[in-house]
Amino acid sequence: MADNKEKITTRAEDYSRWYTDIILRAELADYGPVRGCMVIRPNGYGIWEKMRDELDRKFKETGHVNAYFPLFMPKSFLEKEAEHIEGFAPECAVVTEAGGEPLEEPIVVRPTSEAIVWHMYKKWISSYRDLPLLYNQWANVVRWEMRTRLFLRTTEFLWQEGHTAHANEEEAREEAERMIALYRNFAENFLAIPVIAGFKTAKERFAGAVDTFTLEAMMQDGKALQLCTSHYLGEKFARAFEVQFQDIDGEHRYVHATSWGITTRCIGALIMVHSDDQGLVLPPAVAPIQAVIVPIWKTDADKEAISEFSRALVKRLGTSVHFDDRAELTPGRKYNEWELRGVPVRIEIGPRDLAQGQVVLVRRDTGSKESVAAERLGERLPQLLDEIQHSLFAKAKEMRDRLTQAVDTLEELDTIVERGGFGLCHWCGDGKCEKAVTERNKATIRCIPFDAPKEEGYCIECGNHSDRRVLFAKSY
Amino acid sequence: MADNKEKITTRAEDYSRWYTDIILRAELADYGPVRGCMVIRPNGYGIWEKMRDELDRKFKETGHVNAYFPLFMPKSFLEKEAEHIEGFAPECAVVTEAGGEPLEEPIVVRPTSEAIVWHMYKKWISSYRDLPLLYNQWANVVRWEMRTRLFLRTTEFLWQEGHTAHANEEEAREEAERMIALYRNFAENFLAIPVIAGFKTAKERFAGAVDTFTLEAMMQDGKALQLCTSHYLGEKFARAFEVQFQDIDGEHRYVHATSWGITTRCIGALIMVHSDDQGLVLPPAVAPIQAVIVPIWKTDADKEAISEFSRALVKRLGTSVHFDDRAELTPGRKYNEWELRGVPVRIEIGPRDLAQGQVVLVRRDTGSKESVAAERLGERLPQLLDEIQHSLFAKAKEMRDRLTQAVDTLEELDTIVERGGFGLCHWCGDGKCEKAVTERNKATIRCIPFDAPKEEGYCIECGNHSDRRVLFAKSY
Repeated sequence: MADNKEKITTRAEDYSRWYTDIILRAELADYGPVRGCMVIRPNGYGIWEKMRDELDRKFKETGHVNAYFPLFMPKSFLEKEAEHIEGFAPECAVVTEAGGEPLEEPIVVRPTSEAIVWHMYKKWISSYRDLPLLYNQWANVVRWEMRTRLFLRTTEFLWQEGHTAHANEEEAREEAERMIALYRNFAENFLAIPVIAGFKTAKERFAGAVDTFTLEAMMQDGKALQLCTSHYLGEKFARAFEVQFQDIDGEHRYVHATSWGITTRCIGALIMVHSDDQGLVLPPAVAPIQAVIVPIWKTDADKEAISEFSRALVKRLGTSVHFDDRAELTPGRKYNEWELRGVPVRIEIGPRDLAQGQVVLVRRDTGSKESVAAERLGERLPQLLDEIQHSLFAKAKEMRDRLTQAVDTLEELDTIVERGGFGLCHWCGDGKCEKAVTERNKATIRCIPFDAPKEEGYCIECGNHSDRRVLFAKSY
Repeated sequence: MADNKEKITTRAEDYSRWYTDIILRAELADYGPVRGCMVIRPNGYGIWEKMRDELDRKFKETGHVNAYFPLFMPKSFLEKEAEHIEGFAPECAVVTEAGGEPLEEPIVVRPTSEAIVWHMYKKWISSYRDLPLLYNQWANVVRWEMRTRLFLRTTEFLWQEGHTAHANEEEAREEAERMIALYRNFAENFLAIPVIAGFKTAKERFAGAVDTFTLEAMMQDGKALQLCTSHYLGEKFARAFEVQFQDIDGEHRYVHATSWGITTRCIGALIMVHSDDQGLVLPPAVAPIQAVIVPIWKTDADKEAISEFSRALVKRLGTSVHFDDRAELTPGRKYNEWELRGVPVRIEIGPRDLAQGQVVLVRRDTGSKESVAAERLGERLPQLLDEIQHSLFAKAKEMRDRLTQAVDTLEELDTIVERGGFGLCHWCGDGKCEKAVTERNKATIRCIPFDAPKEEGYCIECGNHSDRRVLFAKSY
């Protein structure tokens, strides 16, 4: 359990330390011995398990199956797709010795699995009858990053990567869109994080994609964080790995591909969107413990009666309610600890409550309290958890909308990104203008929103014609 | 789907090819491009998911929590525990370059995680209040093996590894015993594999363990396969990583450790214990698809009526029943395919069945058939699955018992291990005798069974006194 003697750094004092303090003090993760490698502690891993189970269920509902591809691939594999190697070569960890001997060909630890997957797909696909392949894997990947940060950017991270194979562009594009929509639903309804879905510009695309779709969320400092991506890869990997199929008309055609992934980085987003100066705040859907019972007793007789009562409650309410019966801690100390850990609801039970057959419910997010008859708890608690879930989303959305502005001059954009916020600006589509803005104020185009309305205007950088606004922001 | 034109090799023809044929033809796994690395295909991964979910539930019920430790550790970490490095150094894959630069200190890809876990435990444990830590992780590990074999021995494999920390030897030993008992229950009741539980000899112990407990199963060729192990590690890792705690009496003491794990190798055991010359046979508990409906139709009217009927059945019976409505395959072709894939029950529905409101159930393991009224299927199918589960266990146990013999001379033991089987022999406890037997006939001591009765006798090798029999066999 966390040591609560010292408070965590506040957001106003130092936003970045606040973030790290929450992770270390709530025991979500810790630094491993190899630079940039993170240990995910049980409190953090429990959150990942909730995310994984929910996503896995959704993937299976949409017809996907899980498989497992190897961690290792020959270095030459990455090189088969020209853009792919350009993007990933600088980040690779390379095994050059194994079993006490130098290897003939160096092996790469997967930074992503397109190359190995498409090598195998060549063996498995020959006819239109073999398509589509709707495969997903839950795995670890390694990208050697220069600057790392717990959850947000680690050398090794956990993720899922979907890799699908289709007979034509239309089906593959539908799949890539279906998955970004699935992620959006997950982000908004499960993580309570409002997102802007859109296209990446050519500069920001995945190395090897024809089109990349993204979800962008706003953190409390007004910066953007990319939650996940889904790619339409065209025939690029099929051509690189020579994967053709015989179509129903007898013609040989290249297979169309998608890939899509979401990572442990999401836990960083959860922290930065919802938490406060007391510690972690978790949306109930993703909280491993949704409610904690803290008993308040003075006499041994109280202790016994309240314990019995509490244990009966836990039994009735289910596994996501925890009874904190530690004798060595005061109730106040327990309150702090569970607040730090982000448990959505605290259930206080003292001798007077017991006598009156009621409990006190305290919301983690607002601190508001209410008394509820114990017999009504089975009905009230799920309701309250639902209210908290919606209220966290609404609060995050209110902030995001308040800090998002349509902007028509570079000076205004400078101000917004400096203060923290999203700028919706006209852009002509030229990569040079995109680069010039980034060099000026470090904002990048996070996405071209799917739902950006048609609107005639002039590129914020060069003044040329533009027909919709794109999203500029500084990002994690 | 597998190509069924050719039959698989029979056990009598070539046991080893039979095993590989089943894996490749039932599409459980395939060879990856790096030597010894395996791709687990959806049919195989579905089996692993069933095992993982069942074990994970059992681990959580017994108070364990999941965490995730890094893939990478500095090479020097392995060296801190002398026996540990001796055991694992020859099998390590070593990363020497990352991010385009040579590394200052080489990094090892984990072959097992004791070293990294105990490095972290030093940061997290200081008082008796921090104990016990009952952590588990689901992860991939890498051991560079010379001779590899699908599922049984692969360079990379998936597993879970439990790592627990305790205040004293008694508690730690209890934990190690609890976990081997949990595995035994899982092996016998879930995988339907009878096992012999026992101690490993000093020679066969985990590198760094004080005591290793094992489960040994017999394959159909009479060889032994180690299903999993649980280790009492004593204070070895606590001493190597300097992990002490202040006990309730104020004294500083070293922490006692256990570790325990089970791997994707179990899938190999499942195949070798239950399957036959038609392909995979799966115990219902571990089968991703428990029953498959194969419709038999000639006319379009039949097709429509049977499809409607079948879809209603699937809806009523649940997700583990699959309706095979592929139009391009004959029923016979489908039978072969589902037999190859090991689905425990086939449900045949033809026009006459439909007219009589009944279906035909066919057992994969025995081929026996029965007609059941459709309305009774919700009751009969689970019952039949249960019968199959028990019957597979009984059959495996009958074989194991038949091929296990008490043996008192080396010549008899030679015959048994040559033919395939377990020999229960007296052994004096001396490693030299153990080694001499292995050099003679390749049998090793698989374990000293927990339940070996006290029995006075003479070592099969040297004739010295012995007070119980141990299990000799050739092994995978």
